[in-house]
Amino acid sequence: MEILVYRNGQQKISEGFTVEQLPELLKEPGAVIWVDMESPTEVDERVLLDVFKFHPLTVEDCRENRHYPKIEEFPGYIYFIVHGVRADTSPDRFNTIELDGFLGPNDVITYHHDFFRSIANVKQLLRTSPIACQRGPAFLLHQILDQIVDYYSPVLDDFDTRIDQLEHEIFDLKQPNNAILGEIMDLKRSVLRLRRISNKQMDILLRMSRGEFHALIPEDMRPFYRDIHDHIVRVTDLADSYRDLISGSLEAYLSVVSNRMNEIMKVLTVFSAIMLPLTFIAGVYGMNFDNMPELHSRYGYFAALLVMLIVAVGMLIFFWRRGWLGRGDQRQTPEN
Amino acid sequence: MEILVYRNGQQKISEGFTVEQLPELLKEPGAVIWVDMESPTEVDERVLLDVFKFHPLTVEDCRENRHYPKIEEFPGYIYFIVHGVRADTSPDRFNTIELDGFLGPNDVITYHHDFFRSIANVKQLLRTSPIACQRGPAFLLHQILDQIVDYYSPVLDDFDTRIDQLEHEIFDLKQPNNAILGEIMDLKRSVLRLRRISNKQMDILLRMSRGEFHALIPEDMRPFYRDIHDHIVRVTDLADSYRDLISGSLEAYLSVVSNRMNEIMKVLTVFSAIMLPLTFIAGVYGMNFDNMPELHSRYGYFAALLVMLIVAVGMLIFFWRRGWLGRGDQRQTPEN
Amino acid sequence: MEILVYRNGQQKISEGFTVEQLPELLKEPGAVIWVDMESPTEVDERVLLDVFKFHPLTVEDCRENRHYPKIEEFPGYIYFIVHGVRADTSPDRFNTIELDGFLGPNDVITYHHDFFRSIANVKQLLRTSPIACQRGPAFLLHQILDQIVDYYSPVLDDFDTRIDQLEHEIFDLKQPNNAILGEIMDLKRSVLRLRRISNKQMDILLRMSRGEFHALIPEDMRPFYRDIHDHIVRVTDLADSYRDLISGSLEAYLSVVSNRMNEIMKVLTVFSAIMLPLTFIAGVYGMNFDNMPELHSRYGYFAALLVMLIVAVGMLIFFWRRGWLGRGDQRQTPEN
Amino acid sequence: MEILVYRNGQQKISEGFTVEQLPELLKEPGAVIWVDMESPTEVDERVLLDVFKFHPLTVEDCRENRHYPKIEEFPGYIYFIVHGVRADTSPDRFNTIELDGFLGPNDVITYHHDFFRSIANVKQLLRTSPIACQRGPAFLLHQILDQIVDYYSPVLDDFDTRIDQLEHEIFDLKQPNNAILGEIMDLKRSVLRLRRISNKQMDILLRMSRGEFHALIPEDMRPFYRDIHDHIVRVTDLADSYRDLISGSLEAYLSVVSNRMNEIMKVLTVFSAIMLPLTFIAGVYGMNFDNMPELHSRYGYFAALLVMLIVAVGMLIFFWRRGWLGRGDQRQTPEN
Amino acid sequence: MEILVYRNGQQKISEGFTVEQLPELLKEPGAVIWVDMESPTEVDERVLLDVFKFHPLTVEDCRENRHYPKIEEFPGYIYFIVHGVRADTSPDRFNTIELDGFLGPNDVITYHHDFFRSIANVKQLLRTSPIACQRGPAFLLHQILDQIVDYYSPVLDDFDTRIDQLEHEIFDLKQPNNAILGEIMDLKRSVLRLRRISNKQMDILLRMSRGEFHALIPEDMRPFYRDIHDHIVRVTDLADSYRDLISGSLEAYLSVVSNRMNEIMKVLTVFSAIMLPLTFIAGVYGMNFDNMPELHSRYGYFAALLVMLIVAVGMLIFFWRRGWLGRGDQRQTPEN
Repeated sequence: MEILVYRNGQQKISEGFTVEQLPELLKEPGAVIWVDMESPTEVDERVLLDVFKFHPLTVEDCRENRHYPKIEEFPGYIYFIVHGVRADTSPDRFNTIELDGFLGPNDVITYHHDFFRSIANVKQLLRTSPIACQRGPAFLLHQILDQIVDYYSPVLDDFDTRIDQLEHEIFDLKQPNNAILGEIMDLKRSVLRLRRISNKQMDILLRMSRGEFHALIPEDMRPFYRDIHDHIVRVTDLADSYRDLISGSLEAYLSVVSNRMNEIMKVLTVFSAIMLPLTFIAGVYGMNFDNMPELHSRYGYFAALLVMLIVAVGMLIFFWRRGWLGRGDQRQTPEN
Repeated sequence: MEILVYRNGQQKISEGFTVEQLPELLKEPGAVIWVDMESPTEVDERVLLDVFKFHPLTVEDCRENRHYPKIEEFPGYIYFIVHGVRADTSPDRFNTIELDGFLGPNDVITYHHDFFRSIANVKQLLRTSPIACQRGPAFLLHQILDQIVDYYSPVLDDFDTRIDQLEHEIFDLKQPNNAILGEIMDLKRSVLRLRRISNKQMDILLRMSRGEFHALIPEDMRPFYRDIHDHIVRVTDLADSYRDLISGSLEAYLSVVSNRMNEIMKVLTVFSAIMLPLTFIAGVYGMNFDNMPELHSRYGYFAALLVMLIVAVGMLIFFWRRGWLGRGDQRQTPEN
Repeated sequence: MEILVYRNGQQKISEGFTVEQLPELLKEPGAVIWVDMESPTEVDERVLLDVFKFHPLTVEDCRENRHYPKIEEFPGYIYFIVHGVRADTSPDRFNTIELDGFLGPNDVITYHHDFFRSIANVKQLLRTSPIACQRGPAFLLHQILDQIVDYYSPVLDDFDTRIDQLEHEIFDLKQPNNAILGEIMDLKRSVLRLRRISNKQMDILLRMSRGEFHALIPEDMRPFYRDIHDHIVRVTDLADSYRDLISGSLEAYLSVVSNRMNEIMKVLTVFSAIMLPLTFIAGVYGMNFDNMPELHSRYGYFAALLVMLIVAVGMLIFFWRRGWLGRGDQRQTPEN
Repeated sequence: MEILVYRNGQQKISEGFTVEQLPELLKEPGAVIWVDMESPTEVDERVLLDVFKFHPLTVEDCRENRHYPKIEEFPGYIYFIVHGVRADTSPDRFNTIELDGFLGPNDVITYHHDFFRSIANVKQLLRTSPIACQRGPAFLLHQILDQIVDYYSPVLDDFDTRIDQLEHEIFDLKQPNNAILGEIMDLKRSVLRLRRISNKQMDILLRMSRGEFHALIPEDMRPFYRDIHDHIVRVTDLADSYRDLISGSLEAYLSVVSNRMNEIMKVLTVFSAIMLPLTFIAGVYGMNFDNMPELHSRYGYFAALLVMLIVAVGMLIFFWRRGWLGRGDQRQTPEN
Repeated sequence: MEILVYRNGQQKISEGFTVEQLPELLKEPGAVIWVDMESPTEVDERVLLDVFKFHPLTVEDCRENRHYPKIEEFPGYIYFIVHGVRADTSPDRFNTIELDGFLGPNDVITYHHDFFRSIANVKQLLRTSPIACQRGPAFLLHQILDQIVDYYSPVLDDFDTRIDQLEHEIFDLKQPNNAILGEIMDLKRSVLRLRRISNKQMDILLRMSRGEFHALIPEDMRPFYRDIHDHIVRVTDLADSYRDLISGSLEAYLSVVSNRMNEIMKVLTVFSAIMLPLTFIAGVYGMNFDNMPELHSRYGYFAALLVMLIVAVGMLIFFWRRGWLGRGDQRQTPEN
């Protein structure tokens, strides 16, 4: 548990307080207190219950990983769960990390089980300059949420790149490939998860920015929350369009596979249709009838070869006319 | 019919009352009465009608298995139907058990046709410690609902495992398989049923936690109902994502089948394209023309064999270039 | 036109009134009058216009078969259209019969072009015991609607049976079959029609049970209408899930057809891949070259046969390893 | 521009007025004035702007063909666009004709670029009997809208017939057919267009019938507008179900094509599987080895033929057992 | 930064002001000031912050390209983002250009990073005639938005043409083609992007036209904004129907590919089924048995040829009856 305190008028953040000092600090007028709990112990939880008097259910919620964002108002504070992007996230595997938190009249409590990039960044920032604290706890929370949402952008860019690359792979596809199929599936699942998370997050920020919690998030803070809301709307929007693109990729993949099948069948058909008649002709003159005049003709053999040639060329022309001799897949990748 | 009574200030639950004592008990101030009817008889139903004065339609509803959750307010009590997970539920077959119930000003009535795990658990709990009753009937009901919703979690985990396993089976699939198809179908049906039930249940708990029934569910009970609501939202959410995953599995299955078909066709085509020309050449020299100079050449036979070899190698190179000689399905399972 | 009258306090329904007596009857205080018009004549319509003073548009609506349920309030009465299940309905063909009706302050008018089972049942009931009338016209109407909705249940059971049976047929399918496809199509159409009708009916009953028409449907009648509403909600719900099941059936059918195709292709490929090389070898030794040493070897023929055997066995092993020799479709039906 | 005037108490419609008389007419108390502009000139537009004082934007809207229905209220009048069915509409091609109009306190203005059937019909009607005008301009407008909506019915019947016929064609299909595909596409497009138009029209009529424009559409006119609304609801409903049917047709078509492919493959496989072994056997005894005992046996030839026969019959039994010898498509059309 | 000022009563737009004069100009009563910032510098941004006192977040929003339209109200001004169509847009690639803007009580500020066609057009217009400014800044903004929306029309026409052309290409398709598939994908993506943008824009204009910002957009301006709203509704509507058409195109493409496959298989099957039996017969008489009576018959050879002919003709009749000898794809393009 780290306690960061900003006292009105001060130029620096004070640190190094102990749990025992907390009740005192909370009573200081004009102080902004940020209590960050990383991998919290039972002592930390007791603080939430006994010092901050938070509802036992919310503290229980903190302890569990609940897997979806929410916000709840209680008398004197709001409790929220938001999700940040895990550092090891990739388009194949969208991982989130949960942040539980409380916003009180002059305090922000954050609670997370692992190292949380955005939290670390904001601390760093505060230690350099305490400006973010000067405007009160709602602004400090805005700062944290802003950092969290900012980490979604590179993920979206990764999705973009991967989908683009996938599409090229599909159109360059030599043969149907379960690997590509698996990748499409992974991407789809990731995007759906991203969409679900950001959608719920959007909801929360909409409620924050619309003035629902006006006691704790004052009127002049609302443009800042609206700004984060806009960011997350964009995330959801992009997730939506990525979902469409991935669905399109699957359709394209299936269609390319189908085209390839067509091509295989054409090769088989062309070969069979040329070879079978020739073999038949050879078979005819391989028969052992006593009386087969052609066999004794001087140029019978060569005539037979000629007939075979004519048949073969005839078939080729037949198929060429049908357009079966070119390659069905020009391997054009969209100029996208 | 079992009657459990908690009297204010007592440390224990009183049991062993008879039907005849019920009217008396209901009049006791501060008492919390729980009447649990398992496989109810006609006598039990008469109690509902005559002692509790519940609306005849609700009692009729109790008797039937109505198959979907609902909640209805009547003057002085609310009637609800919720669904628990049956013990024999599996991802292939999602089975529920119906619980009908009434919440009165100082009584909870539960009514079910079979043994109900969650009910038995809560009774066990009360016999150990009557704390749950100290906060009134609404808290007792919350306890029961909480137990019911808790049993959904292992089902969800089972779904997760099964879908994961299914996906691996699909990508490892040697040949198209109606059994896998049947399993996908069963899973889909189960998930849809789960979703439908939990969706309606979500609705009920939302109404309970929003203060719609404030006469019977007091303000300070609402966070507890909101907590159950959150649980069931998560159930619905996961059911949603499982539905998406199962749809994806079906797409993957169809695509894997399609890839396999491609592979089969390639084998056929490669074989035919190599063998047919060779057979044709053999056929040519099997002809019985008198005048076939090659036949009398000393190395004609070997030359013919050489030509065949060249043709065969040529075809192999042709197909190798097209990438048809590898196996189309690398059998990569997603590293999921 | 049949006129049934219940006079307060009476133990029996009075019948056998003529049109001329209607205005008198309508003025009787406390009487409940039910006018049922089956295959109405022009005289009946004049009664609606002149005696009951219903809006000409509603009377016109009665005359036509409008194909969808609705409810409309007019000063002093409500006009409704609901749909019953026709006796000859089957899952392949969902047929409805329209009932037009009016609910006045002390009268119910029903209007239908053909024999209507539910109406006949309610009349039968009234003649046995006039209880349904004692609680006023709204209760009488409830009785009629209840009977109508009750006839949906066997239809739903039929759907259930048919879909189940269809699914078994699909998994037992020997070969693709337009008949099954046709049946899926018919079922789908029926379910969609059922869903559309019950959905609109649900709407009407919701409005009735929510107190929108409180002048004609008193407060204490609402639980009864809510009960019918619940029934119809269940119908709609089941129709929804049947729709999902039928969509699943179509997917299963297409997939089974696709599996069967795979099987066919495998048979073809295995046959071709074994026979073509053997035929080629035979062809080689059928060539007529002068100098073919093998031909003169004593055991050449048997050696050739041996080679053929080895090739055949080799191919069989190759395909067995790929798992192509078993049957792709284990014909397992889901243990549903 | 045609001007039809009904003066209160008159038995006939007066006609033949000039533009100059319009301002006078509009001031006559109790007169109902209908100004119909077919293929309007610039003079007509000036009248709209200068005499009726309509907003310049609405007049501009009239001039253009805007392609979708709308309704807008302005002080003292409402402006609407509705769409009628063009006479040359067919299920393959759903064409509409736009009607712009204004409803004022005692005048209706209609504006259309081409001959409009419904308008002509209403004029005809008025000339025969001016009843429609006696109830004021709102009733006159109702009359016009009713005529427009009535023309949708035959179109829906045409759709019905065409879809039915299409379904039969699909199940009777001898071979895959781009023509049927094209027809499905055309039907789908038409139905979607119909649905879009009628959906918007439904909206407009809902607003008219709900009393939103009560200044111009009095209370007692609302049942009449509700009646048109009901008609258009039915149109939209049917369009919805046609869309479902057409989607079903496409699925059926694709499935029938797939069944046909199966059949083709079975023919190929049966032929290959019977002929290839026979040809192989013949090939074996066509080999030229010196030492082939069977060749010199007296009944060797006949024995070989017998073996061939046994093989052929064996294969036939094999395929018959698999059910491949019947025709996969019983060509059953649904008994619809 | 360009500053255009219209002073009440003047016949011309004044230009050539410097940043320093801005504060003065803004105080002039009745003046309408348009500040257009193309590729803005930091100085410009300072003006937004210091002179106009806009919220820092909105100025930051201006700087970034945010990719979706929005509107926000602040005390004394509204901030909006709308999107115009880029000049280089094609149906394959729908490109937009972002316009940020502010509407104040007597000023309009536009901010864009590149040359913006619609802005240039409006400036041109104003220099010719300052009418657009006479009705205040809301009308000036309407003029700009109108120009922006007008540029959507040609794009929609391009889509129409391209989809039509695509459909013809599909039905004329000689062989499956990844290029067409790629084009369908590109079109789909473009239409989805168009739909998303226009949908959000529709929202903004709905809010503007409904009087939400009545302080800045007076009542009498609303019909003008409603008019733009109507335009953009039409854009969205058409985008919707294009999306449907493109989905239909994909289905048609897949179906045409499938038909083509059928045709290929039929060619293969017909060839195999005719040639294999003939080859077998030839093989039989190529056997070297000592005792084969037919071989020594005088007309044995010719009889064998005759049998072959009969078999071939028989097969042809068999296939002709099944309708396999015609071409499956009549290459009919819909008469669309």
